[in-house]
Parts: sequence; structure tokens; C-alpha cells
Amino acid sequence: MYFLKEDETLDDLQLGGIYVIQKKEAFRFGVDAVLLGNFAKVKRGTRVIDLCSGTGIIPFLIAGKTEASYITGVEIQEDMVEMARRSVELNKLQEKMEFINGDLKNLQLLKSIPKADIVTVNPPYKLQNSGIINPNDKNAIARHEICCTLEDVIIACRVLLKDNGRMYMVHRPERLADILCLMRKHKIEPKLIRMVHPSTNKAPNIMLIEGQRDGGAFLKWQPPLYVYNDEGGYSEEINKIYGRIN
Amino acid sequence: MYFLKEDETLDDLQLGGIYVIQKKEAFRFGVDAVLLGNFAKVKRGTRVIDLCSGTGIIPFLIAGKTEASYITGVEIQEDMVEMARRSVELNKLQEKMEFINGDLKNLQLLKSIPKADIVTVNPPYKLQNSGIINPNDKNAIARHEICCTLEDVIIACRVLLKDNGRMYMVHRPERLADILCLMRKHKIEPKLIRMVHPSTNKAPNIMLIEGQRDGGAFLKWQPPLYVYNDEGGYSEEINKIYGRIN
Repeated sequence: MYFLKEDETLDDLQLGGIYVIQKKEAFRFGVDAVLLGNFAKVKRGTRVIDLCSGTGIIPFLIAGKTEASYITGVEIQEDMVEMARRSVELNKLQEKMEFINGDLKNLQLLKSIPKADIVTVNPPYKLQNSGIINPNDKNAIARHEICCTLEDVIIACRVLLKDNGRMYMVHRPERLADILCLMRKHKIEPKLIRMVHPSTNKAPNIMLIEGQRDGGAFLKWQPPLYVYNDEGGYSEEINKIYGRIN
Repeated sequence: MYFLKEDETLDDLQLGGIYVIQKKEAFRFGVDAVLLGNFAKVKRGTRVIDLCSGTGIIPFLIAGKTEASYITGVEIQEDMVEMARRSVELNKLQEKMEFINGDLKNLQLLKSIPKADIVTVNPPYKLQNSGIINPNDKNAIARHEICCTLEDVIIACRVLLKDNGRMYMVHRPERLADILCLMRKHKIEPKLIRMVHPSTNKAPNIMLIEGQRDGGAFLKWQPPLYVYNDEGGYSEEINKIYGRIN
């Protein structure tokens, strides 16, 4: 097949016939990306930028489910961007989206991109010196703050957003104090949080947060999202997000 | 009855035979105080200080369920302190606890109290200028930041705690960004959060937080606490906390 290399797979997003190319062995999209794509409120005609874009899963999800006018993905790893660009061609979405190979710490680069109504980001979760670093570089870059810290990500959101534009991030609940304090530091006000729990009797293990550039202070909470129901199957809401019927 | 005035009630905490005197018309203890008393980890032989103590519900709960060596309640409203002191006598707890009538913004006063292993606080939740101010003064002081702000409360915790001592606070989830940022500002590290939800499909409406003076950064989350079960009755855990069997 023309679009696909030997070590790659073509995955159906089950969303408007959109497919995304991924490496078999490298970091593959998971529930976090799908939940973030679902959490972000993208209105018709808005400009979206996705940071730490990887193979482009979040831009493709947004392209499939919203009427965003244009979506730009920014990713530091060249081979990921190359895959994402092939996915754009494959899905014939050249008019609606592009991928930029660059470092989100490069503020000159960011300033060259038209400002966005919405920025989405599924950043590396782990502090650089915490936990076991994956010997496979690509996975380490996706999981640990090697190429960028949480503060770099939030500064990039600040730079990329229009006034009162909104950022949507998926992260880990244990980093919430860092996230809220850094958002406030860079004048992106936390507006909405949704916690994702494996099930009703478990602590949250994923968090979704919306922030507004120069927004007023009021933090709303959504009801929890449970991944599994009491019988151990996927919850109704997860099935709906994944577009499957129970 | 000797201990009780006409406009007062005597309420059984259902905990080691402890009773607390409250005004019929004024702010009465609710689920928040009971949840905070349950959330605070008070080891044997520790010194506890409770701020914004009101009629003393949290000190009495802690006296009833722990082996704290000594509990000091601090409250700005003189008539509340007078009631709390009568509750001390009534329960014959003069050796284990005392109530101080004073302002937590008075740092000289706070420094005169021996430092604590644990500080508990159920502060006013609402910003001074938000919402309808209750025409009854006592309730307004208990609910709105009239006599003290959230930052005053956190500064008081900082001053009162021993090194690595822990504070336990109950508050509202919409104030979480304020809480985490102010705790960090005053070097009380957020360590543990538990959200309380009316039921499994509702957003949290009460939050419990533990912070450690000069603690290291790692924020743990407990499983949610649901007040009601799916049938609309109290949940098993709430019944256990209240000491009742379903």
C-alpha cells in the first residue's frame, strides 16, 4: 500500500471514515487523546492548534467531529510529522489541516502561526527525572518532560491563543497543583475540570481541564467520567465517545 | 437545664456520648464539618488546632474519635466561644481541650499557642462580594469571607503548624485553583484531595484537602465519596461516618 510503511498500521477512528497512520512499536494513541478530542468544545469556523501532536490523533478526531475551519498540529519529532502528513493526504484533508515540525519552545515559530480560538494538548505527563525512562526515545519524549516542561506547554498556549481563547489539556490528577498554579501564573484561568475514573469506587487517573486566556476566576466541575461500569465493561458514556453502541 | 439557653439545642454527636450546644437559628454544623472531622488523620498524642471553630463541632468530633493529646479551637465570635466552652464543661473535656476567642489574622495571638501537628479548618466558602449576604450576621461570618479570607486562613495554618505538620480543610471545588495556589504560595504543599459528590453521576460539591507544611510535591487523590446511593438513601460510607448502620 502506497501510504503505509512496513512498521506502520492504519487505524480507523470510526469517525467520518477518518484513518490515522501509526507506528506499530511507538507510542500509539490511547484513551487520553480520545477523551481530550471529545472534551474540547470546538465551534464551527474556529481555528484550532494542537500541541505535542504526535501522529495527529487529536487533529484528526477534531476534523472528524467538528466544523473547525482549520487545524494545525505542532510536533517536535520529524518522523511523526511525516506520518501525520501522509494521514492528511490519505484522508484528503489538505484544505482543512496541516502539521508543523517544530519545537513549542520556539516562540518565534509559534508567533508565525495565526492565533487560535482553541489550543489542545496532550503533553508528556511525567517529570523528566521521575520513573523509569523508556529506552525507546519516541516513547520517552511522549511520556516524559524531556523536550518540554508543563510550563513550556502553558506558555505556548498563552502565545498561540486569541484573547479569551480556550485551551484544553489532558493530564494526570497528581499534577493538578502544578497545572493550576502555572495556568494562573501565565494568565490562563482554569474554567472547567472533568475527572476520569476507572470506575465509581476508584480515584481519578486522568484529568481534563479547560482554561481561558485572561478569563475571569470561576472553576466549574463536570460530573465524573467512569471508564468501566460496575460489570467491568465499558461505561455507556465511553461507548458513546468511541462511537460504538453497547 | 443548666447548660442550655432558651434559643439553644443540645445535639448528640453519636460519638462516645459527646454532645454539642448550638443556637437554634444560627449556623449549625452540617455534613461538611462531619466529613472534615472524619478526613483529618489525627494520631495518638498529637496537638490539634481548629480554626473558624464555631460552636466547636470539629474539636468535639476529634475528641470523640481520636487520642489527640490536646485540641484548641479558635473562633472570632464571642458568643460561639461561650457556647463551645459550655459544651466542654458539659462533656467534662476541660483536660483535653480549650476554646480561644480571637481573630486568626492576629499572628501575635497565634504565636502564643503551642505549635500543632494538625490544623483543621472549615472556613467561610464564599468571597465577600459574591452571592446574597445573609442578613443574620453570624451566618454571614460563617459563610462569607467577611472576617478572614482564604489567604488569611492559610497563613494562619502556616504559622500554627510544626515543621511537616498537616492541615486539613473542607471547602468548595470551585475554589480549588485559589486553594492550591495559595497553599503553594505559603509553602504548604497539597498532598491529598478527596472530592465529595451528591451521587455518582453528579459533579463534586464539597472538597477535602490535606496539605503539609514544607512537604514535597506529590498530590494523591482518594476515591470519591458519594453522599447518596443510587436508591436515594445515604451511602454506606456516609452511614459509617455518621456511626449509623444501614
